[in-house]
Amino acid sequence: MLGAELQMVRDMYGYLSEFCAREGKRIRPLLLLATCMGYGGGKNRDDIVRIASVLELLHSFLLIQDDIIDRSDLRRGGKTIHMICQDRYGSGSHNANIGNDIALILSDVLVANVHEVVGASKIPPRTKDRFMSIIGQALEITFWGQILDIINSNAKKIVQPREVAAQIAMMKTAHYTVYYPMLMGYILAGRDSAVEIEHIKEFSLPLGLAFQIRDDILGVFGSEKETGKPSDSDILEGKMTFLIKGTIENLDGKERRRFMALFTKKRKDRRDVKAIRKIISASGSLETVKEMHSGLVEQSRARLADLSINNMCRGVLAGLVGIMARL
Amino acid sequence: MLGAELQMVRDMYGYLSEFCAREGKRIRPLLLLATCMGYGGGKNRDDIVRIASVLELLHSFLLIQDDIIDRSDLRRGGKTIHMICQDRYGSGSHNANIGNDIALILSDVLVANVHEVVGASKIPPRTKDRFMSIIGQALEITFWGQILDIINSNAKKIVQPREVAAQIAMMKTAHYTVYYPMLMGYILAGRDSAVEIEHIKEFSLPLGLAFQIRDDILGVFGSEKETGKPSDSDILEGKMTFLIKGTIENLDGKERRRFMALFTKKRKDRRDVKAIRKIISASGSLETVKEMHSGLVEQSRARLADLSINNMCRGVLAGLVGIMARL
Repeated sequence: MLGAELQMVRDMYGYLSEFCAREGKRIRPLLLLATCMGYGGGKNRDDIVRIASVLELLHSFLLIQDDIIDRSDLRRGGKTIHMICQDRYGSGSHNANIGNDIALILSDVLVANVHEVVGASKIPPRTKDRFMSIIGQALEITFWGQILDIINSNAKKIVQPREVAAQIAMMKTAHYTVYYPMLMGYILAGRDSAVEIEHIKEFSLPLGLAFQIRDDILGVFGSEKETGKPSDSDILEGKMTFLIKGTIENLDGKERRRFMALFTKKRKDRRDVKAIRKIISASGSLETVKEMHSGLVEQSRARLADLSINNMCRGVLAGLVGIMARL
Repeated sequence: MLGAELQMVRDMYGYLSEFCAREGKRIRPLLLLATCMGYGGGKNRDDIVRIASVLELLHSFLLIQDDIIDRSDLRRGGKTIHMICQDRYGSGSHNANIGNDIALILSDVLVANVHEVVGASKIPPRTKDRFMSIIGQALEITFWGQILDIINSNAKKIVQPREVAAQIAMMKTAHYTVYYPMLMGYILAGRDSAVEIEHIKEFSLPLGLAFQIRDDILGVFGSEKETGKPSDSDILEGKMTFLIKGTIENLDGKERRRFMALFTKKRKDRRDVKAIRKIISASGSLETVKEMHSGLVEQSRARLADLSINNMCRGVLAGLVGIMARL
């Protein structure tokens, strides 16, 4: 830790540690660890756990920025980092945006930490190079998904809802949350077969899409207690989720135009949110996406047998599929 | 390049390439290359040039975020990335902030690219590990400097101007712009002597502080043509530069209070900026910091002889000191 002689730096690391350690699913490091050990790797437990923590650091980095972009107050049941910084430094500054400004740079500190952790890690050189490249790819595809999401949120006009919802989910979730953590675990086990990587892809991508659909449903019909964030945010932000895509596809003519006009309204109030939720339910979109969800879960479950992993890993992955299957 | 099948991704890389390729000083990769070759490294020219480009990618990453934070329209004589994105996507979105939101994620894409470049680079494993750790340290200290800068810009009250201005300059410029690029070049040459690293530090840190003072002077008395950004931005943003610190120290009693009140005003107009510039000049602060500047340049020049480098590198560094000596 550099600059530790400054009280400010100690304070800031306090905010970051508390934020990173909040209760979360930890699905990405779990997948990395289970996959690595499932393919015979992870003998040096300390080293692999430290490397797995990189995924949590990067995830917190993304969450902090996501919260700045979405202007969210809550994350994982606590204040977002930009709110913490605003509370701490807002009163001393004419800069009304100081919380966001500091939070943005604090997210970057986590990236700096990633470089330090990877640099210090004792995994073999060729594996480390491959791991670095995969981190880069995983981040890149996630960022493109994020930008696609930004462009299609709060849009004045809805264009190609089908393609966009699927592309965002594929990039922002299926690759980022399931495929890449598993691929990293596989590579860290010292393995590198193109055939096996294809099997991992066929197992992980449907599971990732199912995960996104589950998130989309919870984002509209879930409780704040369950998700740690307000249940109207997806609607307020006009996010192009599978649920919205399904609603648009299930409606016709006037009803469809009415829904799209309501959904693309500049400012939605509580009544609008309620009306949107009602139309989504009445449209049958919830059933459509639930069917899609269970289809994807089954697809993933069927490919689990293709993976050449040990029983521990198979058990973890089967358990995860089971969790994903519940809505 | 992932996601290249999307027109959006091609557009975005277009913005990034144009931005990264704009005319700039390129001082960080230059220092890395000169130092690496000066210590007998860089035999594989392609590899070392590619690694040096990492510093430009990271610098563009910082500039994009800096421009978001400072709400700047111009950078290196062109539109800032968030302005480009706002122009392109603003009209289709209810999100008034869409340019900033996209630009933020675009800055991150450059970090993803850094991971890919470092992962693919063929420098020896131990050197690469050391390089990674140093990138992490360099970023971290820069970020703390940046946060210190944010907290002390536009402040309602000025606290400890002397310590703050020096700390910001030390972290944000002296380490980031001069010391770390040279240290990276040294390490990339395969060298790792603690004594020599100390010599590099003693040469580079004063030069870096001089560089910051030069920037502080140009930021208030320079022309937009020269710096590529408006010459009133430092004053408008209430940045705690050496020039401001010097002014506060040179003034007494009522005059000092008057200047501090004016400088910490919530909204400064053109008349305020003019008045502030006049007080800075009248206070003799410009002379004070110019003296400080030439002292630092001389200190650095005197330590150049301690470095065990070849003549090419010594020539480059002497040239750089010469450029820094001119105000």
